[in-house]
Amino acid sequence: MGTIDGNTFIQRLNGLKNEIWFDGVKIKGNISEHPAFKGIVAAKASLYDLQNQPSIKDEMTFYLPEKEDPIGLSYLQPKTKEDLKRRRKMIEHWARHTHGMMGRSPDYMNTVVMSFASSATLLKERENCFPENIQCLYKRAMEHDLSFTHTFITPQVNRSQINLGFSKEPISAKVVDRNEKGLVIKGARLLATQGGLTDEVLVFSAPRAFFDPSEAFAFSIPSNTKGLKFICRDSFVGGESTFNHPLSSRYEEMDSIVVFENVLVPWDRVFYYDNVDAATDFLLQSSFYPFAYHQVVTRQIVKTEFILGVAQLLVETINVGEYQHVQEKLSEIIIGLETMKALVEKSENDAELDEWGYMRPSMIPLQVASNIFPRIYPRFTEIIQLIGASGMVSLPTEKAFDSEIRVELDQYLQADGMNAEDRVKLFRLAWDLTMSSFGTRQTQYERYFFGDPVRLSSILNRNYLKNKHVEEISKFLNLNLKSSNH
Amino acid sequence: MGTIDGNTFIQRLNGLKNEIWFDGVKIKGNISEHPAFKGIVAAKASLYDLQNQPSIKDEMTFYLPEKEDPIGLSYLQPKTKEDLKRRRKMIEHWARHTHGMMGRSPDYMNTVVMSFASSATLLKERENCFPENIQCLYKRAMEHDLSFTHTFITPQVNRSQINLGFSKEPISAKVVDRNEKGLVIKGARLLATQGGLTDEVLVFSAPRAFFDPSEAFAFSIPSNTKGLKFICRDSFVGGESTFNHPLSSRYEEMDSIVVFENVLVPWDRVFYYDNVDAATDFLLQSSFYPFAYHQVVTRQIVKTEFILGVAQLLVETINVGEYQHVQEKLSEIIIGLETMKALVEKSENDAELDEWGYMRPSMIPLQVASNIFPRIYPRFTEIIQLIGASGMVSLPTEKAFDSEIRVELDQYLQADGMNAEDRVKLFRLAWDLTMSSFGTRQTQYERYFFGDPVRLSSILNRNYLKNKHVEEISKFLNLNLKSSNH
Amino acid sequence: MGTIDGNTFIQRLNGLKNEIWFDGVKIKGNISEHPAFKGIVAAKASLYDLQNQPSIKDEMTFYLPEKEDPIGLSYLQPKTKEDLKRRRKMIEHWARHTHGMMGRSPDYMNTVVMSFASSATLLKERENCFPENIQCLYKRAMEHDLSFTHTFITPQVNRSQINLGFSKEPISAKVVDRNEKGLVIKGARLLATQGGLTDEVLVFSAPRAFFDPSEAFAFSIPSNTKGLKFICRDSFVGGESTFNHPLSSRYEEMDSIVVFENVLVPWDRVFYYDNVDAATDFLLQSSFYPFAYHQVVTRQIVKTEFILGVAQLLVETINVGEYQHVQEKLSEIIIGLETMKALVEKSENDAELDEWGYMRPSMIPLQVASNIFPRIYPRFTEIIQLIGASGMVSLPTEKAFDSEIRVELDQYLQADGMNAEDRVKLFRLAWDLTMSSFGTRQTQYERYFFGDPVRLSSILNRNYLKNKHVEEISKFLNLNLKSSNH
Amino acid sequence: MGTIDGNTFIQRLNGLKNEIWFDGVKIKGNISEHPAFKGIVAAKASLYDLQNQPSIKDEMTFYLPEKEDPIGLSYLQPKTKEDLKRRRKMIEHWARHTHGMMGRSPDYMNTVVMSFASSATLLKERENCFPENIQCLYKRAMEHDLSFTHTFITPQVNRSQINLGFSKEPISAKVVDRNEKGLVIKGARLLATQGGLTDEVLVFSAPRAFFDPSEAFAFSIPSNTKGLKFICRDSFVGGESTFNHPLSSRYEEMDSIVVFENVLVPWDRVFYYDNVDAATDFLLQSSFYPFAYHQVVTRQIVKTEFILGVAQLLVETINVGEYQHVQEKLSEIIIGLETMKALVEKSENDAELDEWGYMRPSMIPLQVASNIFPRIYPRFTEIIQLIGASGMVSLPTEKAFDSEIRVELDQYLQADGMNAEDRVKLFRLAWDLTMSSFGTRQTQYERYFFGDPVRLSSILNRNYLKNKHVEEISKFLNLNLKSSNH
Repeated sequence: MGTIDGNTFIQRLNGLKNEIWFDGVKIKGNISEHPAFKGIVAAKASLYDLQNQPSIKDEMTFYLPEKEDPIGLSYLQPKTKEDLKRRRKMIEHWARHTHGMMGRSPDYMNTVVMSFASSATLLKERENCFPENIQCLYKRAMEHDLSFTHTFITPQVNRSQINLGFSKEPISAKVVDRNEKGLVIKGARLLATQGGLTDEVLVFSAPRAFFDPSEAFAFSIPSNTKGLKFICRDSFVGGESTFNHPLSSRYEEMDSIVVFENVLVPWDRVFYYDNVDAATDFLLQSSFYPFAYHQVVTRQIVKTEFILGVAQLLVETINVGEYQHVQEKLSEIIIGLETMKALVEKSENDAELDEWGYMRPSMIPLQVASNIFPRIYPRFTEIIQLIGASGMVSLPTEKAFDSEIRVELDQYLQADGMNAEDRVKLFRLAWDLTMSSFGTRQTQYERYFFGDPVRLSSILNRNYLKNKHVEEISKFLNLNLKSSNH
Repeated sequence: MGTIDGNTFIQRLNGLKNEIWFDGVKIKGNISEHPAFKGIVAAKASLYDLQNQPSIKDEMTFYLPEKEDPIGLSYLQPKTKEDLKRRRKMIEHWARHTHGMMGRSPDYMNTVVMSFASSATLLKERENCFPENIQCLYKRAMEHDLSFTHTFITPQVNRSQINLGFSKEPISAKVVDRNEKGLVIKGARLLATQGGLTDEVLVFSAPRAFFDPSEAFAFSIPSNTKGLKFICRDSFVGGESTFNHPLSSRYEEMDSIVVFENVLVPWDRVFYYDNVDAATDFLLQSSFYPFAYHQVVTRQIVKTEFILGVAQLLVETINVGEYQHVQEKLSEIIIGLETMKALVEKSENDAELDEWGYMRPSMIPLQVASNIFPRIYPRFTEIIQLIGASGMVSLPTEKAFDSEIRVELDQYLQADGMNAEDRVKLFRLAWDLTMSSFGTRQTQYERYFFGDPVRLSSILNRNYLKNKHVEEISKFLNLNLKSSNH
Repeated sequence: MGTIDGNTFIQRLNGLKNEIWFDGVKIKGNISEHPAFKGIVAAKASLYDLQNQPSIKDEMTFYLPEKEDPIGLSYLQPKTKEDLKRRRKMIEHWARHTHGMMGRSPDYMNTVVMSFASSATLLKERENCFPENIQCLYKRAMEHDLSFTHTFITPQVNRSQINLGFSKEPISAKVVDRNEKGLVIKGARLLATQGGLTDEVLVFSAPRAFFDPSEAFAFSIPSNTKGLKFICRDSFVGGESTFNHPLSSRYEEMDSIVVFENVLVPWDRVFYYDNVDAATDFLLQSSFYPFAYHQVVTRQIVKTEFILGVAQLLVETINVGEYQHVQEKLSEIIIGLETMKALVEKSENDAELDEWGYMRPSMIPLQVASNIFPRIYPRFTEIIQLIGASGMVSLPTEKAFDSEIRVELDQYLQADGMNAEDRVKLFRLAWDLTMSSFGTRQTQYERYFFGDPVRLSSILNRNYLKNKHVEEISKFLNLNLKSSNH
Repeated sequence: MGTIDGNTFIQRLNGLKNEIWFDGVKIKGNISEHPAFKGIVAAKASLYDLQNQPSIKDEMTFYLPEKEDPIGLSYLQPKTKEDLKRRRKMIEHWARHTHGMMGRSPDYMNTVVMSFASSATLLKERENCFPENIQCLYKRAMEHDLSFTHTFITPQVNRSQINLGFSKEPISAKVVDRNEKGLVIKGARLLATQGGLTDEVLVFSAPRAFFDPSEAFAFSIPSNTKGLKFICRDSFVGGESTFNHPLSSRYEEMDSIVVFENVLVPWDRVFYYDNVDAATDFLLQSSFYPFAYHQVVTRQIVKTEFILGVAQLLVETINVGEYQHVQEKLSEIIIGLETMKALVEKSENDAELDEWGYMRPSMIPLQVASNIFPRIYPRFTEIIQLIGASGMVSLPTEKAFDSEIRVELDQYLQADGMNAEDRVKLFRLAWDLTMSSFGTRQTQYERYFFGDPVRLSSILNRNYLKNKHVEEISKFLNLNLKSSNH
């Protein structure tokens, strides 16, 4: 047992028969053949195949002691800085294969599972905590190369700070019963990307003010658990033609609302429950954020490289490279790209062993990246639109090129150094990247991936040690400062 | 004869049988019934009905001396500031009916035709110029309430400044023959919005460096003229459901490439040809820009009001009005809105009679508005996305609300002061406005409506008289400045 | 009695012998001869002369019924829109004479006094309120053309929202005794611009949360009242040479802390006291803000014109007008200027009579301007610096031009169309405007003139009626909205 | 011989008796005692002392083979990445001692001299080139710990691109004669920071379009060479009080115009002349930029830490840390700081040996930093002003605190956790950093240190290899791209 291939992934997924609702209909038949899901399922399958590709297999897998089967490298618990760099290489491979477009690529969730396992000891001997169940999950995941999604965002009923959320029936998923078999969960979670398209769902809660104990839990259950429903949003697959929709035809991940209708979570699946402190500590002190951010930032770098390629090719195609403002726009992308690269490297160079012996990337550079990317990514999409200008709109379809009108298209849509068909392909890509429903969802996704940008900047400020710098001023001015906590 | 109603518009349009290519197929049958066009044709028809609505008919029409039939007020040649304000009122009515979403609403093109007629004298007794044909057009348009589009953007082959565009076969439409019947035109024009959906097409050229005489023409011909083809881009109609796609199902205007395959333009349709100076003067010195800008800025104000309404309702729905950064975002929209309103009013207050007796809005405030709007409109769409946050993405469809899963949607998607269905309606509107293919095309449309924003700011700077201000400095510092042209 | 001239102003001011502390020393002798104050006193005197200048006297003064002496037009209570426009013309004259650099030019304070008088009725028959004393002040001010400053900013001890400011001894000025002669005031106020340089000081309080009744007062007293001290900040006069310091040698206004050391305010000087509601209502409902904002925005427009002149002349001098990014920077100033002009005109066009018969400018356009200017003014100073570039720094002095080294300066500092001396003059002006201590204080002054910009945007949002726009959305989507207060 | 101490520096400098013109007067007597220069000379002296300080001497010096005296580490030619990190440590020591305020600290120029020597071979056997003279300079500089400035900016007569600069007499310094003794130079250079305050002046030319051979030279000569004059700008020393002017009293470096009045440069001082290609190659291909940028970026990081300390202390003093927009402003500084740190580290990690065996920092991350800092530094000064708000303006002087008015100051200027005197000290520092003539010159200095920001972004774009990214797109879309140079 160990890494699987694409076919295995597809067979297993089809076999689960998860309860997925799409456009008012419960999906029947193979999910891998449904128009709204076939693209993303195929793309995921190709990622599973990728890790077995001989030329890079060494960079994509590792071996557990005394085991014969290769394990996906995303499960590797890093103990040295070299391990971290090895992990980055692997993440880059996954990301490059999908151009950074797949947020919930398998390595992301594998990394999350690995981080949970690496910090499970944090829960040892605390009330209502079962660290051993996390270790089980980790072993099971590695052995079967399981696929996951996670979900932790509560419904957006009321975003006021002092909202206490009284409602008779649960809205946000909570424990409504604890019996001998396990926990019973009722309520919903928002925004599980690829919800229903994975073997299991990892469910936990983000700590917050007014944290209700009945919401302070974490567990992982099979996607086809009884009472678990995935309600999909509208699909952003533009169509099957990769000419017309080069990205959405392949990488539209779908997001779904996860509904728990009195779902029974067996005890051996529960990591903790009814323990606000443990739930808070686990999220904030485990290596979850360091390892997850390391994966995400690496993927975002690959995506930025893709964007730079598109921008540069647009510039060459319509020959606008001579304009200073165009040069400035390209250099803006370059500055963003190199900044992200420098930050992820710094997080590795400044990494330190945590108390359980795992090499954690330094959080500050990653937090800085998490403040930067949600601002620059939307700007990059704007730059693409500003370079493409009116050319972004007037784009005919694949069928038009297959019809008798092609003669006209060839003549009137040609570019200086590119034939009309290639030019339309390129512009359709730029459009799908930034202006289609798929593209704008990508923008919103990157904008909010790490959470509310306003809060992210407050958190960075709070976490950043400034004592040394304040003391320099105090000494320079010879102030009578009480030493305090800056 | 005079104003028509919606039904007349539809019948006449269907009767034209214009040659329109969509997705590789030449459209057959009634254009008003085609899925990609039915929404916009119906929306336009409702605008024609609007001008006959008794409650506002007085504000929408006027009477020509000694004529009985009412004429659309967009044709009115203003001679006083009151006329200008009357025109603005009428434009607001049209715009409000379609929430500012229809760029090529009939009043826009009627205004263009009126401006051409008001300045036709400029062409008098110049070589290859036929001002009388413009007056004919104006009369014909008023009498039959004709619908128009215009087209003047050349194909985006190469945007370098020094591109001289050598190509054996014409790319940009040009005169290839002048015979006894008229001009023969071959080549293409980009981006005719609503191309094929109007009675006539007004064709002219934007002056530019290296202006080829064979491109220095203007004329108006029926859309079904032989050899005239409209090649459509992909459609941005998301679907027929107004619940799912409240805007694109109604207001997707379509853009098309206009191809002239040796189209014969009869002499009585030609306004000028083979005259670079006349073509340049007519665009720059006629009242085309003042009147067209006045219409456009008015429509953009109405659109901004719509956006403010959406933003405010989002804020109330998820109850985020207490956050200072949210208040700042709303105030950004307010500032933009009030600025645009102040500028359009100033253009009216500073209006002056031109040499032919027509009251032209002052251009500077309108040019300022044309520099501002392309910057603030994209920002407004970003603000909508930032307020809506994760709620913009996870949106189920109308059919989901019609299915048994509705129970869950009602519970989990409710907002503090709004039921789930209304909330989803509102968020789908916000999404269609800013994130659907329709919405992003609107953004690109507003960004480039007045032309390249980089050039717009150079032009404003060039046109703005600064002598008085330079002299103040010179006098204050007692400089030995030669008086020159600042 | 009526308008005075500059000489009268100086004599009267010198005669007051106000208690002014500068650099640790109590000023003795004539304030008009002190190096830190002579420039501003002379500039103010020239403004008093200006209103008597025959060529514009009609635009600068008006006559009270049955009185012979002209009164400064800034005291005119406007009853028509024409009055408002007449007031604007007068404000422009004052402002242009000092290039918009003098924040507390006489017309500003006269306008404040006029606004108080125009709204005095608001205080009628309220507890501890003496509207008749305001009318007295108004009459006295007009008759003697008195000069004023005002002060209402409390010391910046702690800016936390929940600071209740417990301190045994008063910090912020408050009423510490009420006796038969009047109020006794102890404590301080920050930032009286021109404090000590005027006949009287108008003292009142800005309403705020946790508004202490003992701070809820308003009065006007002579600057030389016993116990009243003005503690000056460091002077920003760069020197006496108008070559070296064209602005600070003339327009440095000085700011001071106003200390009340048990100052007795006679009852006939008190407008109200110990009445939180009256103090709040008077500031928010009187015409204080509309008339004051109208003056300020007009002055800021004149200042922007001055900046545009400087920017344009810099561009011409070093011949950088061909660069697109320079054109864009100039157009940014133009856009700001025209926007401010459009807003102030809209405030006049939308003006309405208040309940006491005075024509108030509309507040919304002025509030919008008050949100815009604090953002664009600092940007304008940045633009000046970006255009001047390295030339802003390497600037020799007047004496250098008077020495034998002049030969070298003439050769090496010449510009394309300007001799070295003029060029240095111009760049020194640009430097004094944006980079000297005087210039940066101007920037900070404009940034905070209307108060905290963050609060300004919240207030604008709160004051702006959005019902109509929300209802448009509700109707379009057919929502079940309870009509509420948007 | 080797590192000197502060006293030696002062004695040597006074002994030179350089021809310095200040405010129209040729300076006589010891420069170290002149009010405009005493601060900076003392600050430089303290830096020379710093390198001899026992606790860090090991980090500040190194030993040449077979030599006994320590050499300043800034002269070390790095051959490993460890050498680079060692150099960075040393630069940080220098910079921290002066809070990053001294642009032309000795290590900067030593680094430049070292970089010239490390690349001298590039000039070998080229016409009119004398690489051996560079090696001589390097040896001489190390042995005597010489101080330098450099100058390469030409007078700002006309910044148009097509300006060919016809003027009979030279404006920009050029070779006017070549005789047996050496070159004769006539003309001027702008903006030598610390011009006249160093042992020697390094003179060279920045390559440019229309590069005149007579300007294509480089040499280093003693500051007291006959015919060499330094014409100072106005001084930005605010005064001697370190309370009032904590920064300008110490770190005002002065800039001067360097005039060459037929200066004879002996042949053994010439590096190259009359060779446009060599002059261009030497600047672009030598290690000048990599090593100089490495020093500069390190200093800028230290300066940013100082700014962060000031900002944080302001926030604590007036207790505004609870406001989200204040938190965001602090996090903006943190993001800038960490980004710069990550980039300089990346430049070291990606360093490579050049053809002559020296370890060059990678240029791309440094170029990215050089694009970022000129944008964020001005923003940081703005943030300081926005946090300090009105408190930045109303600041009394040291003498006020020494007078009887102190009682009032103590009461009314106290802050929540700081007494009035400390508070005023802190705010005066914030003011001197961002609003005094010294502070704004610092801003302009950082903005233009690396050259015109507009050009910097064009250069970054041009230098950045994008082939790989373009090819990814081409492969993904299956385009028929000719492989070209992207």
